[in-house]
Amino acid sequence: MNTGDLELRRVGVPSTALFTDQYELTMLQAALRAGTADRRSVFEVFTRRLPEGRRYGVVAGTGRVLEAVRNFRFDADLLAFLRDKDIVDGPTLDWLDSYRFSGDIWGYPEGEVYFPGSPILRVEGTFAECVLLETMILSILNHDSAIAAAASRMASAAGGRPLIEMGARRTHELAAVAASRAAYVGGFDTTSDLAAGFRYDIPTVGTSAHAFTLLHDSERDAFRAQVDSLGRGTTLLVDTYDVAEAVRTAVEIAGPELGAVRIDSGDLLLVAHRVRQQLDELGAVNTRIVVTSDLDEYAIASLAAAPVDAYGVGTQLVTGSGHPTCSMVYKIVARATSSDPKAPLHPVAKKSLGGKTSIGGRKWAARRLDAEGRAEAEVIGTGPVPPELLDQQLLVELVKGGEIAAPEPLDTVRERHIAARAGLPMSAVQLSRGEPVIPTEYM
Amino acid sequence: MNTGDLELRRVGVPSTALFTDQYELTMLQAALRAGTADRRSVFEVFTRRLPEGRRYGVVAGTGRVLEAVRNFRFDADLLAFLRDKDIVDGPTLDWLDSYRFSGDIWGYPEGEVYFPGSPILRVEGTFAECVLLETMILSILNHDSAIAAAASRMASAAGGRPLIEMGARRTHELAAVAASRAAYVGGFDTTSDLAAGFRYDIPTVGTSAHAFTLLHDSERDAFRAQVDSLGRGTTLLVDTYDVAEAVRTAVEIAGPELGAVRIDSGDLLLVAHRVRQQLDELGAVNTRIVVTSDLDEYAIASLAAAPVDAYGVGTQLVTGSGHPTCSMVYKIVARATSSDPKAPLHPVAKKSLGGKTSIGGRKWAARRLDAEGRAEAEVIGTGPVPPELLDQQLLVELVKGGEIAAPEPLDTVRERHIAARAGLPMSAVQLSRGEPVIPTEYM
Repeated sequence: MNTGDLELRRVGVPSTALFTDQYELTMLQAALRAGTADRRSVFEVFTRRLPEGRRYGVVAGTGRVLEAVRNFRFDADLLAFLRDKDIVDGPTLDWLDSYRFSGDIWGYPEGEVYFPGSPILRVEGTFAECVLLETMILSILNHDSAIAAAASRMASAAGGRPLIEMGARRTHELAAVAASRAAYVGGFDTTSDLAAGFRYDIPTVGTSAHAFTLLHDSERDAFRAQVDSLGRGTTLLVDTYDVAEAVRTAVEIAGPELGAVRIDSGDLLLVAHRVRQQLDELGAVNTRIVVTSDLDEYAIASLAAAPVDAYGVGTQLVTGSGHPTCSMVYKIVARATSSDPKAPLHPVAKKSLGGKTSIGGRKWAARRLDAEGRAEAEVIGTGPVPPELLDQQLLVELVKGGEIAAPEPLDTVRERHIAARAGLPMSAVQLSRGEPVIPTEYM
Repeated sequence: MNTGDLELRRVGVPSTALFTDQYELTMLQAALRAGTADRRSVFEVFTRRLPEGRRYGVVAGTGRVLEAVRNFRFDADLLAFLRDKDIVDGPTLDWLDSYRFSGDIWGYPEGEVYFPGSPILRVEGTFAECVLLETMILSILNHDSAIAAAASRMASAAGGRPLIEMGARRTHELAAVAASRAAYVGGFDTTSDLAAGFRYDIPTVGTSAHAFTLLHDSERDAFRAQVDSLGRGTTLLVDTYDVAEAVRTAVEIAGPELGAVRIDSGDLLLVAHRVRQQLDELGAVNTRIVVTSDLDEYAIASLAAAPVDAYGVGTQLVTGSGHPTCSMVYKIVARATSSDPKAPLHPVAKKSLGGKTSIGGRKWAARRLDAEGRAEAEVIGTGPVPPELLDQQLLVELVKGGEIAAPEPLDTVRERHIAARAGLPMSAVQLSRGEPVIPTEYM
């Protein structure tokens, strides 16, 4: 076995330079030839709006971005491809051959919440080294943050009951791994996806499918086979035929020690009540009820009063519950007027009509708190930070002169998100549509 | 350089066994112990409904599925993970160690259209070898088919004008590569994603970003830098400041040989007309107009009368234009009552309430044609195929006894889709919401 294979199986991001739009490279070529490629530049990632009706966003994917920056290299294979397809010229190929990002990256720590205009990531270096990272950075943050935002709403709706991520079959096989990670950041507890367990050490769980019951000559045979092999603590799927009959058989076979039953169809509120009553009558008072079946945050909330012990969520999680991507952009906000590394930076911004303007200048961001210590505004500025906001600044250093900070444990990120959400006004966790829960103010 | 690294950079699917829900493995363990794992079984992939309002679905990802089946192995690393986490027992690990799919797979050829109930893929072998593939097969087909369906609608709306896939930054970095592939199948012509060019040889293109204009001291400097380096045939982005001013400058610098201008904001219909008139007045009658900016199939259709030469589509393509996943499921439909390979197959189906029932039995499918040779029904049955439908059968052999058919060129798949869509009633390409364009009939 070689290291390349090992890395591959880990679903890592090795030569991430490939995940790049062609224009990043042709802009590089033109800038190299024009002598402007080395101008010191500042790019910022932000979003002009939250998805419609959402109260807050969740930063997720930062850890993956840092890993991807580390692996962003143009090796012989890639260079041969670019040469064969005549995508860029010889001098550009030479430049790419030795590419390593040597600049600085600051950003909101992963798990933090964000609002329209929040400078979620700030990338600083020469134009050339920064522009190349655009597509890859946006891919990761736009995907992962969309999933984490949905997960966070579902976690609020679940009110402490465990959430199982089961969406692998509903999205691209590698997007699924990132989705599991983002769901964990947003508050999910476990995943069914083995790749996510392997790659990120997220706890994995499994129940059983209808196919297993149908394979056997009777539901009784199937339940007995599962309990014999996996123990009484297993989760039996009880809705292949008749639910009441299945619950009776399940407890008969596993006894009151039966771990859980799963309900995957029907009116979950009604069925959960009936199953709980039946389990209790059979003495299986500790047997838990797991519900699945096209759940989203609203369905989860509607089951708050039902005797449900865990929710399994698939489709609506991995598709961001109606918002499968964020609208984060990566914009140049300042640049030098010469290649001199000491040349001052000038703010720049697109001026055209059409709602896509942006605000020039390298930004700081802080979350202003009210007297009770609760967030009351996202404050963003380009000048000096007011003294009273110095301790509430949001951007942290992630890469310094090309040196990438050590990866954070995912549990740290997950806890940070819980704390960040708890620091917002109470209406943040209302599921109903509304405006961002705190306003963005510019100084 | 080692082979593992090379493969990795090709964005292949090496040890796809990882992309699996845990319950596939625990069901395997229980079936092995119960002596039912070797029962011959038939699983089918189908969907109970199309996304709301859609007239047809597009099968995409089949080629990726076959590649993934080929690479579905449990090597030492994976087995160690499963052992360390105590996910399955020793006998199951031993079984997995030698796993190779040795059964048969039939399916709709990639690029074909499908309808509710269409048996898009049929997997046959022992229960054990078939059940393991569920998650991975569904991940690929659900994702890729969703993108291809959106692409197909956009291609119809574009009416022959070229479509550029630009969505990499709006979805997971590897989902983006699969999305480019699916978009090509659905009728897109090119992609901005270099990884898609590298991996699938899809033609890549690029324009320029606002950052490039803002890097330079004036728009004029930026345009000159781009034309000097990339030639007069390049595409200049004209909406950073004032569009009319930019178009004038662009033609002044590049001359009437200017390849194209890109408009990325504003009222595209109005701006395209103005820009066309201006270009013509400046003598740049062959300079093309490329529009981008949150296009979907409706926006594309609304620009049919505008002087637009190409559409660049991002977000709405890679998120399936409102339907980022399909609802395909993988269900056991028949199985033997013993491990004897010659034991007859019995149809099986879930019977519980809640709308999730399915139809048992191994199925054939055919598309019945009317007198003009146009599709009039999707006919699905479990008995003998009526003689008049023998030539209209849809399922083709993809894997025979574990031997996987040679990969198809993507252009073949793309042409198949164009032909399949052309064989549907005209209302198939209406963008308005409606029922599936042909009914599904069961025999």
